[in-house]
Amino acid sequence: MSVFENTVNAGEKISQTAMLELTTSNVWMMLCIALVFIMHLGFACVESGFTQSKNTVNILFKNTLTPAIGLVSYTILGFNLMYPDFADGPGWFDFSGFFLNDNLGLAYNPSFTYWTSFLFQAMFAATAATIVSGAVAERVKISAYLIFTILFVGFVYPAIGSWTWGGGALGDMGFYDFAGSTLVHAVGGWGALAGVIVLGPRLGKYVNGKVVDKPGSSVPLATIGVFLLWFGWFGFNGGSVLSADPAKTSLVLVNTSLAAAAGALGGFLMGYIAFKRLDLGMVLNGVLAGLVGITAGADLMLPGSSLLIGFIAGVLVVLSAMTLDKLKLDDAVGAISVHLTCGIWGTLVVGIFGDKAGWSQFVDQLTGVAICGAAAFGSAFLIFFLLKKTIGVRVSAEHETQGLDSHEHGIRGYTITHE
Amino acid sequence: MSVFENTVNAGEKISQTAMLELTTSNVWMMLCIALVFIMHLGFACVESGFTQSKNTVNILFKNTLTPAIGLVSYTILGFNLMYPDFADGPGWFDFSGFFLNDNLGLAYNPSFTYWTSFLFQAMFAATAATIVSGAVAERVKISAYLIFTILFVGFVYPAIGSWTWGGGALGDMGFYDFAGSTLVHAVGGWGALAGVIVLGPRLGKYVNGKVVDKPGSSVPLATIGVFLLWFGWFGFNGGSVLSADPAKTSLVLVNTSLAAAAGALGGFLMGYIAFKRLDLGMVLNGVLAGLVGITAGADLMLPGSSLLIGFIAGVLVVLSAMTLDKLKLDDAVGAISVHLTCGIWGTLVVGIFGDKAGWSQFVDQLTGVAICGAAAFGSAFLIFFLLKKTIGVRVSAEHETQGLDSHEHGIRGYTITHE
Amino acid sequence: MSVFENTVNAGEKISQTAMLELTTSNVWMMLCIALVFIMHLGFACVESGFTQSKNTVNILFKNTLTPAIGLVSYTILGFNLMYPDFADGPGWFDFSGFFLNDNLGLAYNPSFTYWTSFLFQAMFAATAATIVSGAVAERVKISAYLIFTILFVGFVYPAIGSWTWGGGALGDMGFYDFAGSTLVHAVGGWGALAGVIVLGPRLGKYVNGKVVDKPGSSVPLATIGVFLLWFGWFGFNGGSVLSADPAKTSLVLVNTSLAAAAGALGGFLMGYIAFKRLDLGMVLNGVLAGLVGITAGADLMLPGSSLLIGFIAGVLVVLSAMTLDKLKLDDAVGAISVHLTCGIWGTLVVGIFGDKAGWSQFVDQLTGVAICGAAAFGSAFLIFFLLKKTIGVRVSAEHETQGLDSHEHGIRGYTITHE
Repeated sequence: MSVFENTVNAGEKISQTAMLELTTSNVWMMLCIALVFIMHLGFACVESGFTQSKNTVNILFKNTLTPAIGLVSYTILGFNLMYPDFADGPGWFDFSGFFLNDNLGLAYNPSFTYWTSFLFQAMFAATAATIVSGAVAERVKISAYLIFTILFVGFVYPAIGSWTWGGGALGDMGFYDFAGSTLVHAVGGWGALAGVIVLGPRLGKYVNGKVVDKPGSSVPLATIGVFLLWFGWFGFNGGSVLSADPAKTSLVLVNTSLAAAAGALGGFLMGYIAFKRLDLGMVLNGVLAGLVGITAGADLMLPGSSLLIGFIAGVLVVLSAMTLDKLKLDDAVGAISVHLTCGIWGTLVVGIFGDKAGWSQFVDQLTGVAICGAAAFGSAFLIFFLLKKTIGVRVSAEHETQGLDSHEHGIRGYTITHE
Repeated sequence: MSVFENTVNAGEKISQTAMLELTTSNVWMMLCIALVFIMHLGFACVESGFTQSKNTVNILFKNTLTPAIGLVSYTILGFNLMYPDFADGPGWFDFSGFFLNDNLGLAYNPSFTYWTSFLFQAMFAATAATIVSGAVAERVKISAYLIFTILFVGFVYPAIGSWTWGGGALGDMGFYDFAGSTLVHAVGGWGALAGVIVLGPRLGKYVNGKVVDKPGSSVPLATIGVFLLWFGWFGFNGGSVLSADPAKTSLVLVNTSLAAAAGALGGFLMGYIAFKRLDLGMVLNGVLAGLVGITAGADLMLPGSSLLIGFIAGVLVVLSAMTLDKLKLDDAVGAISVHLTCGIWGTLVVGIFGDKAGWSQFVDQLTGVAICGAAAFGSAFLIFFLLKKTIGVRVSAEHETQGLDSHEHGIRGYTITHE
Repeated sequence: MSVFENTVNAGEKISQTAMLELTTSNVWMMLCIALVFIMHLGFACVESGFTQSKNTVNILFKNTLTPAIGLVSYTILGFNLMYPDFADGPGWFDFSGFFLNDNLGLAYNPSFTYWTSFLFQAMFAATAATIVSGAVAERVKISAYLIFTILFVGFVYPAIGSWTWGGGALGDMGFYDFAGSTLVHAVGGWGALAGVIVLGPRLGKYVNGKVVDKPGSSVPLATIGVFLLWFGWFGFNGGSVLSADPAKTSLVLVNTSLAAAAGALGGFLMGYIAFKRLDLGMVLNGVLAGLVGITAGADLMLPGSSLLIGFIAGVLVVLSAMTLDKLKLDDAVGAISVHLTCGIWGTLVVGIFGDKAGWSQFVDQLTGVAICGAAAFGSAFLIFFLLKKTIGVRVSAEHETQGLDSHEHGIRGYTITHE
């Protein structure tokens, strides 16, 4: 007599033990979904905290609609494009039809239900677009951004994801990406790079060869965002085990946390060396760098390696931010350095440390980085370019100077008076 | 040999399998409790973000004391009023005595302990009062609000809840409310409406037939609140399954998230049509509208229905807000539109979509809406009216103009200087 | 056929039932780790919200590096100092070597893996230093604070912890501390007291016998912090059961929440009596007081006792804050009153209420309070004193007056303009 028996699909029988395993793993996965969801708030806070107060509402508007659009488009299209069950063996494109399959129900997987699988993947999907949002902030036209998001989450992200996670050809060739250093973060980062190139820098960012800092509206808000992202990464990486397997999940969480901690220290030290100040922005981006850096191999490493990988990621994020500024590539929140640079780093270290280390694996990783990078950057560049030639991608100089909030949204982000 | 054996009450025997099912479901329920708890922070952020900075401390004061009072009064009185074990068959009132029953311990339910059951319900209870808090903000007298909260959480909410969730007469008549579109949200919304009517609008809100916007102190704060409420709703709806049943819980989470996403889109589009601007407030309230709208039937729908229900809720919340303003019913944060309007919508759709759809069920739902509405509105109106005639419900015009913070609390919500 | 079989260490056999128990408890513990992690954000928000806006970045810088340093130093040293497996019977010092033991894997404990155990304890460790951070805020030199943190988290906290939780001599003598009223909170509070004594009060805090309030930058931020700490305490106390045992975990959560609620009411009433105003700061610190107060005995009490313990803690925190101000001990955020005063209160009540009540236990508790207090205060005082004599512990009067942010960090916490 089991309280769960009524949930088993008619005609199927699974043992009580199997049911208990399913139930426990499914609980873990559902809570990981909630954690990944809260990353969207993390991104919203990081991006609105690090950008100017005249554009705060605009950022929050984009970041609230992004997961909404992401969830809906992934329901209609993305999920079945990313997990199409490649009928003819591992390939590059397949599609199992629009909308969800309402009949799959419980009997989907020994560790979680069909609904759980969908929602976990759907929460992931929207993060790729959110990464772009931060980089192009403070001058992107909202209509262009929303169209980009629909296309990027609906087509580009799931198509690329299908090559590895969906059983496609790239995974079959040996490429490994545990939780998405490439498939989520670098894909988003390539999209961000394309956006930044097509849009150009913010007005007054690069003046007479100097980089002009644009002070963020609220450092506490950005800090809240980074901590929420770290919190959410427990689900992002922990849920990517795809079961509650105790040894694997707990190792993944240790690696994730230690890489984040070491990334903070790397960002702190490199920021001090580079700028001669106690640079909180680099500490915070160091945390995110460490997290992105461990994501591709969090299940393959021992904690010592995670410390090293995270620390180097924290150093890299500072060097990358400095390099982008030299190239006059204006990323409003450092998203390209965090997600693209450290996403590539995290993907490559799978070939350097841990269970899969070796020259052959390193080449496989490099191949994956190149193929996914070409696809993501190429698609994003094309979308942004076509948008530029049609509806335009950038607000007017007047709107940009006066701030997007008063022009497009009609309210201000902060109204602090005491009378 | 089980590590849990020591917890089984003396003399009772349950099988290892039953113990494992209990343990897993209880873990799920406990984490859902934590998620519902964080909704109180969500409400605090939404309400303080959407209201003026001169009243921020006052809002936070109310929103911190509300769950505290709620938990204590539910311990002393509410739980035993809401789950009284109607000894004489389903009725309208029963009471199983003050304080908790310390002897029930583990052997309460195959899926969770007595303590878990109490705490899950207690966290729910305080949300009903919090909904009122937002609507009456910026002019309500704190003493009146606190007395209202004690009575509303201690008596009104649990009495109404007992009719359906406690095994009472309304549930017996066929009314269905999975997680509280009516029993929590509309009950709170009716209380808010009563409060707004008795209190009257804020000074300067309706001037010469025009609606004057009162700019909120911090849009990021309001956004944090909405995301936290969505996050908490994973526990609010997910925990209402009352077990970790994998198929049911995961379906509920999918429906909940898709309704929220569609609600955001509905609020976005309707806000654009109505106000010709990219109205973040309507997107945020659209998210909450979608969540309230799916709450009564989240276990009965397929995802396609959830998208539709949520989208319509997002449209309704805009129309409702406009209507209330036409009636000069001044709801400081849109709580009535979110919780009452969409609570009714969510309750009725149980008769339109999903497992229980049909005319007979629709009438049952309508009956429940009417009975609970009459009871909640009537009680709340009576309490506010009696308070008005005795201690008064509204601060002086001078206090209201100058802000409640400096007068009642002696500090300011924000003190941002750099020297 | 189990989906988890592959995780069992080679050569070991555990039954499917044991594996399921392990998996479920491990899921609970991992989610408690995530909850304890988010407490670091809670501390960051409380401390930056309650302190002046000219020092916001400095606070956040410390609070971001604290868990990073804590995790790394606990990996290298702390964990093996705190859980050294005292080979010669319960003692006062032992050490099982640097770094983690990568070979332990799954076969560590019937309820959680080695990795889970490490990470749960590591997340705890850094909180002790964070408590100090708040008290010494707005005038401590960052280099001194970081060195203190390394030593306090690396040596002092784990050494003291080993005496009770690590199987050492103090626990053997009968001292009981469920989740750390003494071992975490009072240890941190003693460190804070030592820091405050060595540093001296902030400039302009005590003038002509009067206490001058320094307005906090953002009350909403402080409120977010307190709610996040309460949220995190579900994991802090709930995870300290060290399994998912349903009766124990759920009782602990009920006690924890009721003590927090009662603490809010105690702080509210005592704040009103003492200051004749609706003092939100005292309500918020009352919540934390209640939480700290129940932490040592949350598994031993019934809910009625928790209400009483929490309420008294809420009263005590106000009296303690007033007393410290009389002694001109300037604690910038009330950390000593919350963590030390209520930590002692919480430890002693184990001898007054619940399963272990009795004179003998009370003496054991008093002994533990005294021994741990002497060790924590003595060590912290020595570290701060040596730092004062070498690199200095306090910023210059000029930096303190102008704010630490512009001098040490080069950015401001808030930059709110609308053009």
